[in-house]
Amino acid sequence: MAKTSVKNGVNVEALLAAREALKNAPEAAKFTWRASCKWQNGTHSRTDVHGFHGLGAEQKHKTEYSFEADHPEIFASEDLGATPVEYVLVGLASCLTAGVAAVAQNRGIQLRSVEAKLEGAMDIQGILGIDSDVRNGYDDIKVTFNIDADASEEEIEALVAQSQKRSAVYDIVTNPTNVSVDVVKV
Amino acid sequence: MAKTSVKNGVNVEALLAAREALKNAPEAAKFTWRASCKWQNGTHSRTDVHGFHGLGAEQKHKTEYSFEADHPEIFASEDLGATPVEYVLVGLASCLTAGVAAVAQNRGIQLRSVEAKLEGAMDIQGILGIDSDVRNGYDDIKVTFNIDADASEEEIEALVAQSQKRSAVYDIVTNPTNVSVDVVKV
Repeated sequence: MAKTSVKNGVNVEALLAAREALKNAPEAAKFTWRASCKWQNGTHSRTDVHGFHGLGAEQKHKTEYSFEADHPEIFASEDLGATPVEYVLVGLASCLTAGVAAVAQNRGIQLRSVEAKLEGAMDIQGILGIDSDVRNGYDDIKVTFNIDADASEEEIEALVAQSQKRSAVYDIVTNPTNVSVDVVKV
Repeated sequence: MAKTSVKNGVNVEALLAAREALKNAPEAAKFTWRASCKWQNGTHSRTDVHGFHGLGAEQKHKTEYSFEADHPEIFASEDLGATPVEYVLVGLASCLTAGVAAVAQNRGIQLRSVEAKLEGAMDIQGILGIDSDVRNGYDDIKVTFNIDADASEEEIEALVAQSQKRSAVYDIVTNPTNVSVDVVKV
């Protein structure tokens, strides 16, 4: 069977076992992901990611991940980190790419390289408040995958389509997600 | 005038000048933000952010920013980076926080500290394909701001409300954004 010789580094057996286990324990499938952001100065902030909740317990990443965000110099800022909208592209790119690897492993397709270029078009008349008919966010995002794999063009296209179908970030970006904001004066 | 003594580190004069300039040059307000992702192994990828297009020309960050993404060990992965869905929280947190600083500067409110805690609830029955009625992305995201500023509770709440109104990432997450995906076999 071809699948066993494929090495994309994804433990599909463990994921399929988790799927079976969670079918009988739906509470364990409820996750909470967290981030903690501290304003530094100007438009510069630092956001830490470490703990999360899932499988019915508190969990932790192996290390704390820390991310600087800022606006670029052409917005009269210091450019001490990527812009917030670029972080959305990072999330979308990495989610779809992880999905391609997982689906390829499950389908017995050996990947050699996967690259994704993302472009998000935005008219900043929205965020600057020039024209209230212009949205603040991306007008659209274009993703281009270049994939070298031991598979036909159709099979490669099907990999990406299945990744989109199961991608958390693709869903968050393409569909509305409720965000509630509370404010505490300290 | 109180505004002039407020130091939040945001150059509001430059932003207001840019707004005036872009009113007469709407083409310059069209930005393209980019990210370039390379699959490493398993669910691990690296995404670079450097160039973008705006103000009618190619632009660059001062340095290239590079981000590792992976799934955690409880998903049978290596945990070599934050998860893609956590990057979305980083983008949302940093966008709203930069907005709070900019609006505070514009309104002459001195900030002392701004912290935001974000929690995104997700039922992973969606991404695992257990139940097709469960969405892949966040069910909802809860943001809690703790703000110490030289202002009343109402003024601080109004700061955050105005930041939400002008936030690119808040818009991307709460409203649908079109994503097109092309695939090239190499």
